[in-house]
Amino acid sequence: MDNVEHKGISNAVIKRLPRYHRYLGELLESGVERISSNDLSAKMNVTASQIRQDLNNFGGFGQQGYGYNVEFLYNEIAKILGIDHQNNMIVIGGGNFGQVLTNYANFESRGFIIRAVFDVSPERIGKSIRNVPILDMKELEDFLGKNSIDIGVLTVPKEAAQEAADRLIACGIRAIWNFAHLDLAVPEDVVVENVHLSESLMQLSYRISEKRKKS
Amino acid sequence: MDNVEHKGISNAVIKRLPRYHRYLGELLESGVERISSNDLSAKMNVTASQIRQDLNNFGGFGQQGYGYNVEFLYNEIAKILGIDHQNNMIVIGGGNFGQVLTNYANFESRGFIIRAVFDVSPERIGKSIRNVPILDMKELEDFLGKNSIDIGVLTVPKEAAQEAADRLIACGIRAIWNFAHLDLAVPEDVVVENVHLSESLMQLSYRISEKRKKS
Repeated sequence: MDNVEHKGISNAVIKRLPRYHRYLGELLESGVERISSNDLSAKMNVTASQIRQDLNNFGGFGQQGYGYNVEFLYNEIAKILGIDHQNNMIVIGGGNFGQVLTNYANFESRGFIIRAVFDVSPERIGKSIRNVPILDMKELEDFLGKNSIDIGVLTVPKEAAQEAADRLIACGIRAIWNFAHLDLAVPEDVVVENVHLSESLMQLSYRISEKRKKS
Repeated sequence: MDNVEHKGISNAVIKRLPRYHRYLGELLESGVERISSNDLSAKMNVTASQIRQDLNNFGGFGQQGYGYNVEFLYNEIAKILGIDHQNNMIVIGGGNFGQVLTNYANFESRGFIIRAVFDVSPERIGKSIRNVPILDMKELEDFLGKNSIDIGVLTVPKEAAQEAADRLIACGIRAIWNFAHLDLAVPEDVVVENVHLSESLMQLSYRISEKRKKS
């Protein structure tokens, strides 16, 4: 797979990949070795042709009349998603949300390891969350100089988020998982994935309103 | 606006609406009364024609050469999003994540009010989070019979999520904000908005991998 190029993959496909990965992981856990696109389709509530199309973006993986080898496909999708190796993260902001993310062991099982949490509050600095140390924000540059970190997670208030992002980027961080409720300004070579919970909630309330109008 | 139909609005537009709402809210706070689609475009990093197109889905709001009235547009988008009135919520699951959501005052400022948290743990039941009571999951049906709730928030482990969703739906809940890491099976008239944090993280790692391949 390493030599297969997958340029121009649509966002919709990329959003479905983690879902494929999840379902294949569950099949693997239940001991299923092989699955047809029809069976996978029924399980995932996606059409079989959609599945074939999605996977063809990455070179296929299936054999006509033979289906998919679950473990192989699971591992290949992990490679595509960049989760076949460890991703080191730091969390900026040791408040409630930063604590929950740091406590959430599921990330680790997918190779996302939180190495440190940074905060400005003297009450938090020096403590730890599930063995992850809470360090002084002043030590950020020093820490990033000594440790190889792939992803910076921003859980600071929105007023502090851009400055924190700028500092991460200046230290070479090229991926930001942003929970602060603003759109970060970043150079082109930096990827940002936003989780704006209020906006997710508003999309839900929009859809409730639409349903009510129709009924 | 109440008589304007907006059927068939694409998901992409719906996802942008909360962002318009956020930017207009910030403009309003800074005392800006009127803005051209060009200025809004520069601020939001979306093309002016995109903005005009998006808003035309809902009947326009702008006047040629005159721009948008910020407060009017802000309020109209709030109506479209269904946040011009209060949305009552309950949280199922009083663990770390449920606590953070319940503590997060920003939802309230947008009219999303958490009325109760439900849990099965005797250590949590009877306590409260920011004055929101933690009730016994056994009382769910009774509570929903006596209170008008719009949105059920699921923060339970994925093993418990479908059963919790079924119980909410049986009591008439038609909107679920789902943080459990599974796809819920729900009737057609129920809307579900998923927040799958691991999948968001995988999308980020996918984009890191892609960047690395290119560079």
